Amino acid sequence: MTLSHEAWEDRVRRAVLAALEAPAADDDAELHRFAELQRDYPQRGGKAIRARLVLLSAEAHGAEVEQAVPAAAALELFQNWVLVHDDVEDDSETRRGRPALHRLVGAPLAINVGDAMHVAMWRLLIGIQAPWRDEVLNEFVVTIARTACGQHLDLAWVSSGRFDVDEDSYLAMVERKTAYYTVVAPLRLGALVAGVAPDPRFEPAGLALGAAFQIRDDVLNLLPDATGAYGKELAGDLFEGKRTLLLGHAVAHMPERDALRLRELLFRPRDEKSHEEMHEALELIRRSGAIERVQAVAERKARDGLTLLREALSAAKSAAAAEAIVELVETLARRRA
Amino acid sequence: MTLSHEAWEDRVRRAVLAALEAPAADDDAELHRFAELQRDYPQRGGKAIRARLVLLSAEAHGAEVEQAVPAAAALELFQNWVLVHDDVEDDSETRRGRPALHRLVGAPLAINVGDAMHVAMWRLLIGIQAPWRDEVLNEFVVTIARTACGQHLDLAWVSSGRFDVDEDSYLAMVERKTAYYTVVAPLRLGALVAGVAPDPRFEPAGLALGAAFQIRDDVLNLLPDATGAYGKELAGDLFEGKRTLLLGHAVAHMPERDALRLRELLFRPRDEKSHEEMHEALELIRRSGAIERVQAVAERKARDGLTLLREALSAAKSAAAAEAIVELVETLARRRA
Repeated sequence: MTLSHEAWEDRVRRAVLAALEAPAADDDAELHRFAELQRDYPQRGGKAIRARLVLLSAEAHGAEVEQAVPAAAALELFQNWVLVHDDVEDDSETRRGRPALHRLVGAPLAINVGDAMHVAMWRLLIGIQAPWRDEVLNEFVVTIARTACGQHLDLAWVSSGRFDVDEDSYLAMVERKTAYYTVVAPLRLGALVAGVAPDPRFEPAGLALGAAFQIRDDVLNLLPDATGAYGKELAGDLFEGKRTLLLGHAVAHMPERDALRLRELLFRPRDEKSHEEMHEALELIRRSGAIERVQAVAERKARDGLTLLREALSAAKSAAAAEAIVELVETLARRRA
Repeated sequence: MTLSHEAWEDRVRRAVLAALEAPAADDDAELHRFAELQRDYPQRGGKAIRARLVLLSAEAHGAEVEQAVPAAAALELFQNWVLVHDDVEDDSETRRGRPALHRLVGAPLAINVGDAMHVAMWRLLIGIQAPWRDEVLNEFVVTIARTACGQHLDLAWVSSGRFDVDEDSYLAMVERKTAYYTVVAPLRLGALVAGVAPDPRFEPAGLALGAAFQIRDDVLNLLPDATGAYGKELAGDLFEGKRTLLLGHAVAHMPERDALRLRELLFRPRDEKSHEEMHEALELIRRSGAIERVQAVAERKARDGLTLLREALSAAKSAAAAEAIVELVETLARRRA
């Protein structure tokens, strides 16, 4: 690998933007705007963790990093169009430090922008000229279908007012919604790009690590960071009424009276929730000891996943790339900020 | 062709449902519901005009009809997921005689159901085993990208309150939003499935015929049918504030005072519009002579398109299939009910 990881990630970012069709020079202003809207989220930056994982996995499997750029870019595009739609579905306020797209242009335009980005992702993938292209196409089919399944569970629990989400149900949701596309798919794509059959342990390892990552993310969503500021948005999950493992454990381990109050605070439309009330909800959750409990679940998942992943990567063609993969996912699965 | 067209359309419908992944028997109830929601629109029936056109075009180009079933089913799937998203974007009330999906389950779930149907369409297409598969994949990329472009224009005009949509702008929108996927794509897909390069005249012919179809559809949206009932929903386009050619011609040819009143009636949120007011708007449009004017535009488009299409199909391998194509699109482009 002659380029640094930063330089490769820049290559991926440029491949993402290149995949989003530019309008013809003589198209009208509204079509230029349409193209700009598709580039909005990708241009906001973001950590591009999944792309980095695809590149590292390709390298670990003996491929030239260059070969992995289209698949990595397509996975970033996937992440971006899913975020556009998720933000509408959750009515999120912000994304990467700016207002969510639908809050800038309205939900109708944003949904359609997401669809245009989705098909741009397929255009990029279908344009790959390599013997392993069809396996990559199939991997994207599986990845998107699973993610949509997980998203359905997440949304359905909110809309049906289901409060008693136990650990198994939560994990079944989060493995589909987040873990597969965040860890399993990148590991598998890297192997496929190298013309190698993905190690079957990537799936259980990636699901455990991805679940740990999401559990940490749920906790971080509720905790102020070192500067005293909250993450994506102040306790956004509470405003959105998300069923997290945190909430499940809190309800299971708090006095009945607190559980009733928590339900009352969280089960109302977003615009009827005040910041004071969400702080009260947060205090109830803290007092229940749920934060420590779910951190323990995340730690167990992280440990099991890392053990399996190390085994799966033990015969990697590039030991350095394998080590970088383990480091990256460990940081994700164990992050505390 | 041994099966009747009705029997083939039934084959296509079954292929659509088969493409929508069934949940595993032991999946939880919510995942079974997710699968059912994806099958909702396809199971509501619909005319399947585009599928019929794909099958006929394949036959006209010398293919076995059987070969065209996956592409025809994928085009129906496309139509169905686009309708799920369009109905959210337009906040439509009904679809094929029942409430629009988002009115049954809420917009968040409906958007995600549309995404799951979208990826099911790609799974079906990627699974095709034939030398022409990649050309069909590319045709879908082009089709979806154009449709999203046209949808953007349509939505952006509504959201920006643009009232002065002239004939050229309207046609540029409708060619992308409706005409390409309704007529051009089916004609081209039939050729591709037969291993034949599509005649270049299919594009201008299909765009003209598809535009005629949409203009008629816009008019029919506003007129009660023979039973006195309105189409999809009572003057739904007026409630949704759609920019139609009808509206453009009406504004251009009515007294200033009427134009101001029309603008006042149509430029307000849907829930501030009464049926009485929409009837008043309809009367203003009628009096302007716009209906006759746009019917004339549709007729000119239909005539030009049919002439080109007949030329393009003059060397068809099956004269009967070619004649059936012309008949079908003529019915669409000239329908008065």
